Amino acid sequence: MVHTIGTRADKAGLPPGTLVHIGQKRSCQVKITLTEFSESQYQSKEIKEIKEFLPLKDKPVITWIDINGIHNLETIQNIGKYFNLHPLILEDIVNSEQRPKVEDLGEHLFVVLKFLSYDTEKKLGIEQISFIIGSNFVITFQENGEDVFRPIKTRIKNSAGKIRAMGADYLAYSLIDAIVDNYFVILEEVGLKLDILEEELVTNPTRNTLHVIHQLKREMLLIRKSIWPSREVISSLQRGELSFFEDIAVLHLKDVYDHAIQVIDTIETLRDMLSEMMDIYLSSISNRINDVMRVLTIITTIFIPLSFIAGVYGMNFKYMPELNWRLGYPAVLLTMLCLGIFMLIFFRKKKWL
Amino acid sequence: MVHTIGTRADKAGLPPGTLVHIGQKRSCQVKITLTEFSESQYQSKEIKEIKEFLPLKDKPVITWIDINGIHNLETIQNIGKYFNLHPLILEDIVNSEQRPKVEDLGEHLFVVLKFLSYDTEKKLGIEQISFIIGSNFVITFQENGEDVFRPIKTRIKNSAGKIRAMGADYLAYSLIDAIVDNYFVILEEVGLKLDILEEELVTNPTRNTLHVIHQLKREMLLIRKSIWPSREVISSLQRGELSFFEDIAVLHLKDVYDHAIQVIDTIETLRDMLSEMMDIYLSSISNRINDVMRVLTIITTIFIPLSFIAGVYGMNFKYMPELNWRLGYPAVLLTMLCLGIFMLIFFRKKKWL
Amino acid sequence: MVHTIGTRADKAGLPPGTLVHIGQKRSCQVKITLTEFSESQYQSKEIKEIKEFLPLKDKPVITWIDINGIHNLETIQNIGKYFNLHPLILEDIVNSEQRPKVEDLGEHLFVVLKFLSYDTEKKLGIEQISFIIGSNFVITFQENGEDVFRPIKTRIKNSAGKIRAMGADYLAYSLIDAIVDNYFVILEEVGLKLDILEEELVTNPTRNTLHVIHQLKREMLLIRKSIWPSREVISSLQRGELSFFEDIAVLHLKDVYDHAIQVIDTIETLRDMLSEMMDIYLSSISNRINDVMRVLTIITTIFIPLSFIAGVYGMNFKYMPELNWRLGYPAVLLTMLCLGIFMLIFFRKKKWL
Amino acid sequence: MVHTIGTRADKAGLPPGTLVHIGQKRSCQVKITLTEFSESQYQSKEIKEIKEFLPLKDKPVITWIDINGIHNLETIQNIGKYFNLHPLILEDIVNSEQRPKVEDLGEHLFVVLKFLSYDTEKKLGIEQISFIIGSNFVITFQENGEDVFRPIKTRIKNSAGKIRAMGADYLAYSLIDAIVDNYFVILEEVGLKLDILEEELVTNPTRNTLHVIHQLKREMLLIRKSIWPSREVISSLQRGELSFFEDIAVLHLKDVYDHAIQVIDTIETLRDMLSEMMDIYLSSISNRINDVMRVLTIITTIFIPLSFIAGVYGMNFKYMPELNWRLGYPAVLLTMLCLGIFMLIFFRKKKWL
Amino acid sequence: MVHTIGTRADKAGLPPGTLVHIGQKRSCQVKITLTEFSESQYQSKEIKEIKEFLPLKDKPVITWIDINGIHNLETIQNIGKYFNLHPLILEDIVNSEQRPKVEDLGEHLFVVLKFLSYDTEKKLGIEQISFIIGSNFVITFQENGEDVFRPIKTRIKNSAGKIRAMGADYLAYSLIDAIVDNYFVILEEVGLKLDILEEELVTNPTRNTLHVIHQLKREMLLIRKSIWPSREVISSLQRGELSFFEDIAVLHLKDVYDHAIQVIDTIETLRDMLSEMMDIYLSSISNRINDVMRVLTIITTIFIPLSFIAGVYGMNFKYMPELNWRLGYPAVLLTMLCLGIFMLIFFRKKKWL
Repeated sequence: MVHTIGTRADKAGLPPGTLVHIGQKRSCQVKITLTEFSESQYQSKEIKEIKEFLPLKDKPVITWIDINGIHNLETIQNIGKYFNLHPLILEDIVNSEQRPKVEDLGEHLFVVLKFLSYDTEKKLGIEQISFIIGSNFVITFQENGEDVFRPIKTRIKNSAGKIRAMGADYLAYSLIDAIVDNYFVILEEVGLKLDILEEELVTNPTRNTLHVIHQLKREMLLIRKSIWPSREVISSLQRGELSFFEDIAVLHLKDVYDHAIQVIDTIETLRDMLSEMMDIYLSSISNRINDVMRVLTIITTIFIPLSFIAGVYGMNFKYMPELNWRLGYPAVLLTMLCLGIFMLIFFRKKKWL
Repeated sequence: MVHTIGTRADKAGLPPGTLVHIGQKRSCQVKITLTEFSESQYQSKEIKEIKEFLPLKDKPVITWIDINGIHNLETIQNIGKYFNLHPLILEDIVNSEQRPKVEDLGEHLFVVLKFLSYDTEKKLGIEQISFIIGSNFVITFQENGEDVFRPIKTRIKNSAGKIRAMGADYLAYSLIDAIVDNYFVILEEVGLKLDILEEELVTNPTRNTLHVIHQLKREMLLIRKSIWPSREVISSLQRGELSFFEDIAVLHLKDVYDHAIQVIDTIETLRDMLSEMMDIYLSSISNRINDVMRVLTIITTIFIPLSFIAGVYGMNFKYMPELNWRLGYPAVLLTMLCLGIFMLIFFRKKKWL
Repeated sequence: MVHTIGTRADKAGLPPGTLVHIGQKRSCQVKITLTEFSESQYQSKEIKEIKEFLPLKDKPVITWIDINGIHNLETIQNIGKYFNLHPLILEDIVNSEQRPKVEDLGEHLFVVLKFLSYDTEKKLGIEQISFIIGSNFVITFQENGEDVFRPIKTRIKNSAGKIRAMGADYLAYSLIDAIVDNYFVILEEVGLKLDILEEELVTNPTRNTLHVIHQLKREMLLIRKSIWPSREVISSLQRGELSFFEDIAVLHLKDVYDHAIQVIDTIETLRDMLSEMMDIYLSSISNRINDVMRVLTIITTIFIPLSFIAGVYGMNFKYMPELNWRLGYPAVLLTMLCLGIFMLIFFRKKKWL
Repeated sequence: MVHTIGTRADKAGLPPGTLVHIGQKRSCQVKITLTEFSESQYQSKEIKEIKEFLPLKDKPVITWIDINGIHNLETIQNIGKYFNLHPLILEDIVNSEQRPKVEDLGEHLFVVLKFLSYDTEKKLGIEQISFIIGSNFVITFQENGEDVFRPIKTRIKNSAGKIRAMGADYLAYSLIDAIVDNYFVILEEVGLKLDILEEELVTNPTRNTLHVIHQLKREMLLIRKSIWPSREVISSLQRGELSFFEDIAVLHLKDVYDHAIQVIDTIETLRDMLSEMMDIYLSSISNRINDVMRVLTIITTIFIPLSFIAGVYGMNFKYMPELNWRLGYPAVLLTMLCLGIFMLIFFRKKKWL
Repeated sequence: MVHTIGTRADKAGLPPGTLVHIGQKRSCQVKITLTEFSESQYQSKEIKEIKEFLPLKDKPVITWIDINGIHNLETIQNIGKYFNLHPLILEDIVNSEQRPKVEDLGEHLFVVLKFLSYDTEKKLGIEQISFIIGSNFVITFQENGEDVFRPIKTRIKNSAGKIRAMGADYLAYSLIDAIVDNYFVILEEVGLKLDILEEELVTNPTRNTLHVIHQLKREMLLIRKSIWPSREVISSLQRGELSFFEDIAVLHLKDVYDHAIQVIDTIETLRDMLSEMMDIYLSSISNRINDVMRVLTIITTIFIPLSFIAGVYGMNFKYMPELNWRLGYPAVLLTMLCLGIFMLIFFRKKKWL
């Protein structure tokens, strides 16, 4: 298997329902984690074959199947077959450039969201996370090798909060909440970068400052594109019209929705601040040019007339009476001094000095 | 207890309903003021323990519990337990970065607003104020050590206006009105700063002027972010759909809503004016560069040709007939004068002088 | 009584319904004009005491009470008492920074609009005009000393149009129409100023041009803030849902509404034109800098190399063979001439000349 | 009769329904064309008096009265009297600054649209065209001397298309269609101008280019202001709620509506392109300044140090050992050459050359 | 037949329903492909005369008539006559500047979309594709000689996917899907160009970079204008209100709608990125001017004072005591050196070096 990046264009012309993985093929090994829990029971294991967790439907526990890696099309297809998912849904799962959305499939609910993270080189990564939510199970599809849901897994294991006592809807809410909460982490990191930038802009703006502003602007574009449609998704989840979520989960989803709006407010404010900084940078450049111009002008306009005078008395005419005056030289020096001082006064008056 | 600032990111990954104080831990001492009043009665005291004001429900008076300081999570939790508040509500109360909102909890009404103030160093402070409004009581949660509601307390004490004769809804209205009225104070202060700025821009724009413009722009961003969602909150309060507010309070809330819209209009106008000032500053810089360039150009273009002439007659060629002419020197001087005057006339014609 | 300007901030903290005059105290004398008319009758007199026009309700005439000056709080309070107006309404009347709005008070209709005018020094003045419209009377509150409604008064006196034959609703319409018609006068004046500006921009843009553009931009901001909400007010009047207006007045109000929309269209167009002019100004500055730079560059780059050559032959080395050549001097002059001409050709080719 | 331009301000203060012609008084002679046609009949004549076409109602033909010139208030008033039109409608007809609108008058339909044209000097002209549409007649009011509807007249005369076989609604549609179709002609002319502009911008941007861009921007502002509200008008016509239009005409109006939307799309695209061109112009200026600066800097920074060296050896000190060296002069020349070449290499490395 | 480009203006004044081809007359030969298929049958042939495929209605197969070339008005007219299409529909088909739209004709559904492609010279081409969708047939009208639908034809031929087993609605969906999928290909190509541009902007921005940015901006304007209304079209198709599409096709159309929204999101992001790049380019120019200015200023301000000193001692006064000093020359040289070093230190302190 070769590591390549599939793009959306690869799919043009293929019949609908053809599974083509779009996105970076990050790790070749797909990791499937099966977690089964009820208030009293708890079991979590890594599995290899999809058949290991069958049959699912009659178990008196909540089952969470977390599939980490969406490039193995066979696994996806098997899951699709077992849960009777429409090929178009499978297509959306393996297309990592899917827009966040929610779709009521009758038996299940299909949700797509984006997870944002900074990698070790502080580069923004966008990962797609799809959910299939059923009455007693949740299937999650992660794109990346790193596990987004580790805290939730720990919480279930430790039975922290009431997560073990609740149904699949509460589990789904917890997972979505984890994703939205993570947006705050990302935005605070951006906020920190902005604070550093601002400090730099005031004390010592360099060309690199500009570069960082532009990079942050682009990052904000990507973040906004990923998060903006999520608001809509969570809004339709919290409206309580979907039968998958009971009252208690809806109440919690309203809270998640509040957070989503707050995230979007913050994004807009950060964007405005970035434009603001861009403006500050540009006016600082403008100011600098102004400064440089002023110094240049002052030096030039003071010395050019003086040099001219010196040039005049450097001419070799035979009959130049001043040259033979005893006080010619000091008189000229004095004249030059006066002219220079006059110029300085003139510039001070014009507020250029 | 250490004084640190909790941020939104600290909470990511924690189970919902975990109380984490987000915001500056301003003062370590939480101050609880219990005010009980009816048309004839009035009593106000500072209390330490939440138990002191129990039981509340059967008293024939209006009770207002004002909690100043939200970082003491135990107090908040006790109140939550007594009034049967959902953990998510308590979370919102202690999270000082909550977006302004209103939530109908069935038994109570939960309102979050922002209070703005300039501290002694003229720095903008944003404080969150949460309300729990019940049928015969109001609980307010303030973030800061300074008391926002002092005028209302005085008014109740002095029985000024009809506040003592009315119910808890009117008390809630009065408190919200106090917050919105305060926005006008802040915006007038911003307006004053703008007037000073404008004066400065016309008479003597310095680099500091630019700095102040940018600072004001950022302040306006924060003010807008805080006030904008308040409009929505007050709008849904004044629509009269919430059973907590009787007709008379709704009528007054409509008035508050009018003020909120006016506040937002003013914010937009102030923002436009700031952009305007930024433009004026930039064009004044542009004009200055233009001025400086003009002077430089005039001086340089006048003297450089003259210096060239002087340079020519400063050459040491053996055979330069002009040098031996009797009138060579005055002729050259005259030529230079004519050239200079011609240049000046040329510049005046080009309107550069 | 001292002439001061009350601001919105003076009111913060006061109980609702406390009358505080906000705005400039323009003239100390309040002028009350009482006009009573029917198709056959007409009477108009200036009165001092509010009692003079009582009782009002049973008269078979239309009564128009025009109160010019809102700073006399006692008068306002008396009127409020007599017509049973809510204290919040009185507050709105004396607060001259009220946003335009319409409020259905059941018995009466309360309308607030803004009147714009240029004073003798061509400064834009914004005046608030409030209306209390009843079944057989209209009360108007003007802020200024100058009478906005003089033409309407004359029309009633002369029985011009059908105004005498109609009810209080038609009178109210006529007054509102007068205010909106006046917006056209203001905008045409702005339009005229723009035409002059444009002329100036093309022929001779000076620093003052920029100043006037900025001033007009600010004026447009104020005009827009005053007129924009009026559209909404008139829109709700013309929708015919308010029982105060009969069909015929509603038809006329639709016309006023058309005008209001046209006014707003014009405001937007004028604003776009102003931005346009700002752009033209800035690019003219840019062009000028370009021009100046070009002249500077041409002069400098032609003469600096020539001066250098002259400088070389001004050196005092003992062994410089060229200095002793017979044709050295003319040869150098010729070289310089060629170099200069070459430079000029080069610049002409680059289109800088 | 004097040729003057009436403005909107002339009307302020006048009672409603007073006819005042607003707009340029283009030609003094009003031309009234009466066209009567049915499938078999056709008659068209120019008339002088309004009485000539009376009575109208009982004729078994479709009557189209085309009034060219709206400044003759008497004619308008006569028509108003005969067709029982409200004075406010007549006011709208003679006010050539009326916003495009549609009004259902019960018996008739009143429509106002704008016709755009370039006159012989390529100046944009905006003309108002009002329609009174009845069950068996259409009255059109044109402002200008030039006849907008000539092609329609010819089509009726020649019985081209099905226009003769249809009712007054189809005639009205045809007239409106002619106006909207004409917008395409105007926009294509603007598009052509843009193409020429773009050519100019790439090959040889002059100050005139900027002037033309600004002029086109203003024209687009006017075009947009005229056409934008037309979309709304045609939208309400094609919704089929007005009893004046039968199904077949509604179908055709839907088509006109499509065209109107396309026109507005094109306007927006043209506006964006103009902004784009403005940007290109400004950056070309910026680039030029940059070019000029570079040449200036290169020449100056090469020759100024060289001139300094020449200056040093031009000093008249008695004891300057270099001056007496045999190879002093060539050594200095060589030094200068090296310095110059070094400078050139430095500039090439910096990519300034 | 002459190859000319018909424009929208050619049509103004003509009666509605007159067929005029608007657009480039790309190839003179119209190519008609008739494809008939059912689950078991398949037949595809190129035909010349419209009569060859008649009668159509009673065949138990799905018929797809693909007409490549819309400039042959006779063919269009014949099809219109046979399928009883309204002349306005035929007009829309041959007008290649039609806005994307959907129209329910009762018996048929009429859809207009745009197909985008880069030709061999990488120039963006916009082609109009119209659909007539009936119960058992689809007619497509392509503008260009190149066949957009080749992959679909192959899929039908090979019976790939379920296309052969489904009805005309599924065929229509497949064709629309092919068009929308193609948008991704175009946008990815634009994205690639942007990546190259960005690389260039960082490493070596030239004037050509600016040119390419502007060209891409214009392309994006055209792409947006073409695609934006398509969203609306597909939205109304997927709402399931049109009887032409059965449940299964509606489900697939929802998927297409998702893609359309994603396309529009991407367009907006690309546009934002282009503006961003424009900004980067402009600030890089600004930075360059700043750099050039700095070098100029440093060189000039260092050497001009030094040259002045040299000039002073080049004067020919008889009585200049310094000239006769033994150490005069080295002293002056030392002074100059110190002055130069002082200047350099000054500039380093000002951060100009």
